[in-house]
Amino acid sequence: GNEAPATKRTCVELSYGARAKLQNVHPLTSKLLNIMEEKQSNLCVSADVTSSQELLQLAESLGPKICMLKTHVDILKDYTAAFSQELQGLAEKHNFLIFEDRKFADIGNTVKHQYEGGLYRISSWSHIVNAHAVPGPGVLKGLSAVGKPLGRGCLLIAQMSSQGSLATGEYTKAVLQMAEEHPDFVMGFICGSKITKRPEFLHMTPGVQLQAGGDPLGQQYSTPEEVIYNKGSDVIIVGRGVLEASDRLEAAESYRKSGWDAYAKRVAQGGQ
Amino acid sequence: GNEAPATKRTCVELSYGARAKLQNVHPLTSKLLNIMEEKQSNLCVSADVTSSQELLQLAESLGPKICMLKTHVDILKDYTAAFSQELQGLAEKHNFLIFEDRKFADIGNTVKHQYEGGLYRISSWSHIVNAHAVPGPGVLKGLSAVGKPLGRGCLLIAQMSSQGSLATGEYTKAVLQMAEEHPDFVMGFICGSKITKRPEFLHMTPGVQLQAGGDPLGQQYSTPEEVIYNKGSDVIIVGRGVLEASDRLEAAESYRKSGWDAYAKRVAQGGQ
Repeated sequence: GNEAPATKRTCVELSYGARAKLQNVHPLTSKLLNIMEEKQSNLCVSADVTSSQELLQLAESLGPKICMLKTHVDILKDYTAAFSQELQGLAEKHNFLIFEDRKFADIGNTVKHQYEGGLYRISSWSHIVNAHAVPGPGVLKGLSAVGKPLGRGCLLIAQMSSQGSLATGEYTKAVLQMAEEHPDFVMGFICGSKITKRPEFLHMTPGVQLQAGGDPLGQQYSTPEEVIYNKGSDVIIVGRGVLEASDRLEAAESYRKSGWDAYAKRVAQGGQ
Repeated sequence: GNEAPATKRTCVELSYGARAKLQNVHPLTSKLLNIMEEKQSNLCVSADVTSSQELLQLAESLGPKICMLKTHVDILKDYTAAFSQELQGLAEKHNFLIFEDRKFADIGNTVKHQYEGGLYRISSWSHIVNAHAVPGPGVLKGLSAVGKPLGRGCLLIAQMSSQGSLATGEYTKAVLQMAEEHPDFVMGFICGSKITKRPEFLHMTPGVQLQAGGDPLGQQYSTPEEVIYNKGSDVIIVGRGVLEASDRLEAAESYRKSGWDAYAKRVAQGGQ
């Protein structure tokens, strides 16, 4: 065996593939971790476009590079049920999961309807959704009543990348506790850095760009290396870094490689 | 003049009508307060139905009893732009405001699109929306970029009626501060009780029924008397108490009267 590396890291760092095999892991988490291992990608592209056609083109061209596609279906000016079927087809074809970034944040009885019904029928096509914990555990009870029978999963928003977010400190701890109490539906977290050592929970981080910085409406950016290697997150979520590139496919490949290299370095060093 | 009443109340309690005339009040707050005074109603009905036709029927029949109609447009199975125009017409006819309970909760750049665009184009028809403060002030910057030029207003969610909500203590204080920093767009709060003495801010309370209790998904109910008289809120938001009544119009009138009586008693006693 190798000598122990000269770092402060002491825990064993499991690979994505090893975590996929854990006994208590959510089936959809297991599926995602296997996709990540297979495609060597911890990249989720945030498809923040307003045209269905453009979103489908993105899914078709970037599909091979990503483990997950994040949508905001409610900013599309021309959503149809046919669109969601085509998107599901592309997810199947290119082996990625769909994550509708709805940020459910109401009482249980309301989110149940918002998740299942309306024009978007999110639960019928999105593998993963997310929720704020601020309403209390009822939000998870309402969502899981709809999503669990369909094999869906949920991410809880533990931290946000925006300036002055209130999701810090005690709030974040309460989110973690809520997740631990609902492991049959909660796959992990939207967060800036790893908040639990439990390997069955995923950490996904938005606000990622190759260069750190921000936008005029309070968004703050970190780099893939910072997020995956230093902060111990599992998935980088990249929006404008890809969408505003002159060559989106080339940009996606850069992010995939940066994210994967940072992960490989972390695992090689025995984790943190 | 009268003798001071034998209560612990010492502040002057302004009437809705007097508050409508305050110099620093949001124009839409002023409009709402005048509607409340004129119709003797602090009742907002929560139209949590899944059919556009049923929602329009509710607006038509209950319109004369309410100051505001709260919608969840994203649970309607058959939303169309024509529906939102008809709803606007009914709001005009019966003199109430429309409050889309969207609970925006994302970074500024995203909520801007969610508010203005998508299939629902919420900013084009809803006088009032609400937002969670958890993303930080960027959520208000994004929403007000769209809503302020249209004369719209926003309520911040300071507390929730659901069990185990994280909107308490320091979180609620941070919400108040965020509102105080954006009085040109924030009209007030969704809350369980009055959180500031500033008379230019409105307090609106969901989870109201004539009998206290709860639902299996964590909702908790208070009575109109408790909410308006004891807790000092301004508007009662009633959903199932009206919708599940055998006679909805009769139920709405009961809530209107209870809410108004509690307000009249509060003002008569000089406020709290």
